[in-house]
Amino acid sequence: MDISTLVGWILAIILIVNGITVQKLGNFVDMPSILIVVGGTIAGLIACYPFRILKDVPKHIAICFRGKKYNIPQTVDQIVDLAMIARQSGLLVLEEKAGEIKEPFFKSAVLMIVDANDPDKVRAVLERQVESMMTRHEEARGMYLKGSALAPAFGMIGTLVGLINMLKAMDLSGSGGGSTLGQDMGVALITTFYGSTLSNVLFHPIAQKLGVRDNEEILYCTTVIEGVLAIQAGENPKTIREHLLASLQQRQQDKLMKKSGDKGGDK
Amino acid sequence: MDISTLVGWILAIILIVNGITVQKLGNFVDMPSILIVVGGTIAGLIACYPFRILKDVPKHIAICFRGKKYNIPQTVDQIVDLAMIARQSGLLVLEEKAGEIKEPFFKSAVLMIVDANDPDKVRAVLERQVESMMTRHEEARGMYLKGSALAPAFGMIGTLVGLINMLKAMDLSGSGGGSTLGQDMGVALITTFYGSTLSNVLFHPIAQKLGVRDNEEILYCTTVIEGVLAIQAGENPKTIREHLLASLQQRQQDKLMKKSGDKGGDK
Amino acid sequence: MDISTLVGWILAIILIVNGITVQKLGNFVDMPSILIVVGGTIAGLIACYPFRILKDVPKHIAICFRGKKYNIPQTVDQIVDLAMIARQSGLLVLEEKAGEIKEPFFKSAVLMIVDANDPDKVRAVLERQVESMMTRHEEARGMYLKGSALAPAFGMIGTLVGLINMLKAMDLSGSGGGSTLGQDMGVALITTFYGSTLSNVLFHPIAQKLGVRDNEEILYCTTVIEGVLAIQAGENPKTIREHLLASLQQRQQDKLMKKSGDKGGDK
Amino acid sequence: MDISTLVGWILAIILIVNGITVQKLGNFVDMPSILIVVGGTIAGLIACYPFRILKDVPKHIAICFRGKKYNIPQTVDQIVDLAMIARQSGLLVLEEKAGEIKEPFFKSAVLMIVDANDPDKVRAVLERQVESMMTRHEEARGMYLKGSALAPAFGMIGTLVGLINMLKAMDLSGSGGGSTLGQDMGVALITTFYGSTLSNVLFHPIAQKLGVRDNEEILYCTTVIEGVLAIQAGENPKTIREHLLASLQQRQQDKLMKKSGDKGGDK
Amino acid sequence: MDISTLVGWILAIILIVNGITVQKLGNFVDMPSILIVVGGTIAGLIACYPFRILKDVPKHIAICFRGKKYNIPQTVDQIVDLAMIARQSGLLVLEEKAGEIKEPFFKSAVLMIVDANDPDKVRAVLERQVESMMTRHEEARGMYLKGSALAPAFGMIGTLVGLINMLKAMDLSGSGGGSTLGQDMGVALITTFYGSTLSNVLFHPIAQKLGVRDNEEILYCTTVIEGVLAIQAGENPKTIREHLLASLQQRQQDKLMKKSGDKGGDK
Repeated sequence: MDISTLVGWILAIILIVNGITVQKLGNFVDMPSILIVVGGTIAGLIACYPFRILKDVPKHIAICFRGKKYNIPQTVDQIVDLAMIARQSGLLVLEEKAGEIKEPFFKSAVLMIVDANDPDKVRAVLERQVESMMTRHEEARGMYLKGSALAPAFGMIGTLVGLINMLKAMDLSGSGGGSTLGQDMGVALITTFYGSTLSNVLFHPIAQKLGVRDNEEILYCTTVIEGVLAIQAGENPKTIREHLLASLQQRQQDKLMKKSGDKGGDK
Repeated sequence: MDISTLVGWILAIILIVNGITVQKLGNFVDMPSILIVVGGTIAGLIACYPFRILKDVPKHIAICFRGKKYNIPQTVDQIVDLAMIARQSGLLVLEEKAGEIKEPFFKSAVLMIVDANDPDKVRAVLERQVESMMTRHEEARGMYLKGSALAPAFGMIGTLVGLINMLKAMDLSGSGGGSTLGQDMGVALITTFYGSTLSNVLFHPIAQKLGVRDNEEILYCTTVIEGVLAIQAGENPKTIREHLLASLQQRQQDKLMKKSGDKGGDK
Repeated sequence: MDISTLVGWILAIILIVNGITVQKLGNFVDMPSILIVVGGTIAGLIACYPFRILKDVPKHIAICFRGKKYNIPQTVDQIVDLAMIARQSGLLVLEEKAGEIKEPFFKSAVLMIVDANDPDKVRAVLERQVESMMTRHEEARGMYLKGSALAPAFGMIGTLVGLINMLKAMDLSGSGGGSTLGQDMGVALITTFYGSTLSNVLFHPIAQKLGVRDNEEILYCTTVIEGVLAIQAGENPKTIREHLLASLQQRQQDKLMKKSGDKGGDK
Repeated sequence: MDISTLVGWILAIILIVNGITVQKLGNFVDMPSILIVVGGTIAGLIACYPFRILKDVPKHIAICFRGKKYNIPQTVDQIVDLAMIARQSGLLVLEEKAGEIKEPFFKSAVLMIVDANDPDKVRAVLERQVESMMTRHEEARGMYLKGSALAPAFGMIGTLVGLINMLKAMDLSGSGGGSTLGQDMGVALITTFYGSTLSNVLFHPIAQKLGVRDNEEILYCTTVIEGVLAIQAGENPKTIREHLLASLQQRQQDKLMKKSGDKGGDK
Repeated sequence: MDISTLVGWILAIILIVNGITVQKLGNFVDMPSILIVVGGTIAGLIACYPFRILKDVPKHIAICFRGKKYNIPQTVDQIVDLAMIARQSGLLVLEEKAGEIKEPFFKSAVLMIVDANDPDKVRAVLERQVESMMTRHEEARGMYLKGSALAPAFGMIGTLVGLINMLKAMDLSGSGGGSTLGQDMGVALITTFYGSTLSNVLFHPIAQKLGVRDNEEILYCTTVIEGVLAIQAGENPKTIREHLLASLQQRQQDKLMKKSGDKGGDK
């Protein structure tokens, strides 16, 4: 599990509360302000997106807190194993092996070469799948970016509402006209505070984390595509390992190549 | 029908009115301010776009409220049916089948393979059609994005007009010079409020919804293109189904593949 | 003639003047402010662009007010006519027909196939021509976008100049120090008003209109390129018409295809 | 020499000074403010870029003031001359002709075809050269864009410094506490004025001018590449001229084609 | 070592402190403000990125201060030497030569051609390696850009916290209500000052420097890829040198070509 988002959120809240000082926290709670900023942002998102995208919010939150789901080095090991089996016993034997693979993209990719499809076709179908997955993810990420833009906007709308009401009620010519000016203006600014905090502490990190996860998923999928096509082309398992690892960091590569060297020696 | 935009708009208006408090709503109605912001934004859009694009506004609003028009799984079923017919009785038989297809893009695509065009030509013509459709949609979407930029700009112009008039009339040295300062400034800020609300509640959601619909239409059109070319190439209907479904979400795929498995068993 | 830009400008000015109220128009005329904003913006543009681009401003304004110059359906008709002539009497006969074409791009494209150039070469040369035309247009459009960014910037510089002069002269400790504070600040804000209005009412619409015209020109040029190459390839005139119309809107297509059906029947 | 940048700068300075009014110029000179804005922007640029890029500033300024260095029509003439020589006497004769060419890119391109390289190789090497030149230019341009972003930022930092110092020293409860408030705030705002002016009058125009020059250089280099490859392919000199001129404006083309027609007639 | 970032930082700090004036430095130290801005920005980054990216911060700082690690001309010399060896003694001899190469990318590229891989495969694997390296670097750079956006945002949140607390406590109707107004507002503005300084002095330069280093690394890697593929294709070492140097600046090229001419003469 990747708790960095949670750690960041808790830390940010502690620091902001510390800046406010606990005994003055009451200054920062104002129900109509919360309604106009939080509610307005949600209303704006509902107006922007169809329910089909909105209903996936819990899934997106889960993705943020999930640890690294895709274990590339282990996937490379699996691909190398499949390549060795395919070389010894032919591609058809991979059908039963595919049953053991849990990750659906990998599984469908292996089944596609078992069905003896044309390599160009396999690549085209798998890449189209990755592309349309990415479009969906981009849409989801876009929702949080939109949220991070709407929150300060509704914060400003709330502040304008507060200021206009305050100014309209102000009577500078009379005696005590300005007596509550300070407090009214304080209340008006609270919505700007809410909007700014929501945008930077809540929405931006979620959008960013989803983007990082996307990159990991693309790396995983392209590794699977390259690997499966190499199996179909009957390439040398050792060469497959080397080429697939090329996309990892140098540090990780060195570690993994050594391990593979040991393994390679046994076979 | 997709009512999320309507739900979002109503919710946003309720929340803003709640923030204003109903009895003070009068503070927020000012005719010259409405004219300068709403009218100015419309004037700006008229200056930016030719009438050919402006007159499609009702159509765009309709698109926002329309439910999912493109039913991809059903389209895939239709394509698979056509593929089976084409395999049994040849491509020419598709001509009468095409008459039953209502959606014009799909229909014209099927007629194009009936006319025995070169596959590369078919792909080129259809993709050009999708591309120029997208350019048109992008233009339409751009109009609402431009509106969302013009509204706060005219809001600020209105506020500057109000402030300058107020400041010019101000007489701080005299006795009651500042007596209506608060109310005047309140009026000046109303245009900023209008601009901000128009931009975030009206224009942004329309632009965003149009973008989401565009993505759906692109997905539909690319599915049709791939499907029709696969029919022309005489591919196996079952394979066509699998490949076309690759662009859907895993969840939907599983559901549909099972169904297709049942169907495939019958045939 | 496309008067939407003019209509938009007049409407915007009427609405802003209405917001100011006519009798207070004098508040908004200040010669040094006009010089610093309008002059400064022009000075900035002169510093940014070589005279070669600056001297085309009248041409750009003309393009904004020009109606739709490119009549695609009529061009398609011309291409189809040329295709029929070419099929009957060979490509060389097109040379005299080319003399009747007024639009220079279309003319040079037809002459290029008369000269029996290689199709790939024809496409490459014509596409290069479109590309470099687009680069020039993009440069022109960029100038107005730059203007729309410079105008508010010089508006702010003017306001800062006014504020600093005002604040430096202010003497709060004395008796009548603040007496003209309001009016001075009003004058200072006028430059911001000028900058904002110039940017949103003048520059943005011109930049946007030029962009719309560019899209029309690209659509025209790609139609000509596809059409001329189809003539060279000796394709069926009817097929050429269908394929070229693919880039128009469905509505327009239906209308035109019907018409072409009638015509096609005669021939 | 292209003096538009200089003209623009002088005009902008005159207009701003006119807005300030000459006798109040003293209000706008404040040494620590100049240090924090001008110095801070330079410090920021030094921190952002390695010395290798920073030391080219004088060269960039020179490029801004340089007139149109690349004379495309004349280059086309040179290419056509070389094409005629190559047709008559073979490519090897071009070696001595290349010695007469001063512009290094053109020269190296001609020498490359004299060495009888493979056309694809020639194109790849020359295009790589253009690309890496563009990366270098983009880096240089980016520095001025960065400067135009840093200047207002340091302007704001300076204003905050001034405001905080002023507010901390303010004593509203006492008698004369606010007496110098106006002048202090005026000084604080001066840095914002400096930042805004630097960004819009100095940095933006340089960045823009460098971009315009880049476009001219790209046009020149692509013309040379196309021309040299056409010479190598042994194309007809007249056709080469027509195709190379395709990237110029219609107006220029007409003028040049006529001239070339006269010349072509002589030969 | 490239000390420009350090020089820039020190210069910026000196200039800002000079603007503050040393004896007033105390005005700018406020612990809760530092916590809310610096801490909040760090918390935001932790929430945005997984620990895998966060833990590389020291490495990124080191990259900023590192001098030009990649010596392209020397690398070209090495490639030319390898090309000569390969021409004389075959590709297999390069295996032991590869052992002398320290830079891992170069080494793995040479070993890949020793293993007699297909040239297209070699290019694909190496380009994939460069691409995934760039994705990683882009992620790292994105973190500092995000930091430069979060810092002013938390600065504004801190200022809002300060202002709201101040306004809520304000009592304008009483006697000494506004007495500490100035100082309180000064404290509130300090967080904006921190945010702006952090963003422009710390985060922006790091992000920019990492981008410059990336460009250098891409140039190095593409040079290695082109060079190694040219060795595999058995090209003339002199031609390889010329082509590889094409991506350097004219100035550097002239210097290096002359040197290579001297060397070339010896062999």
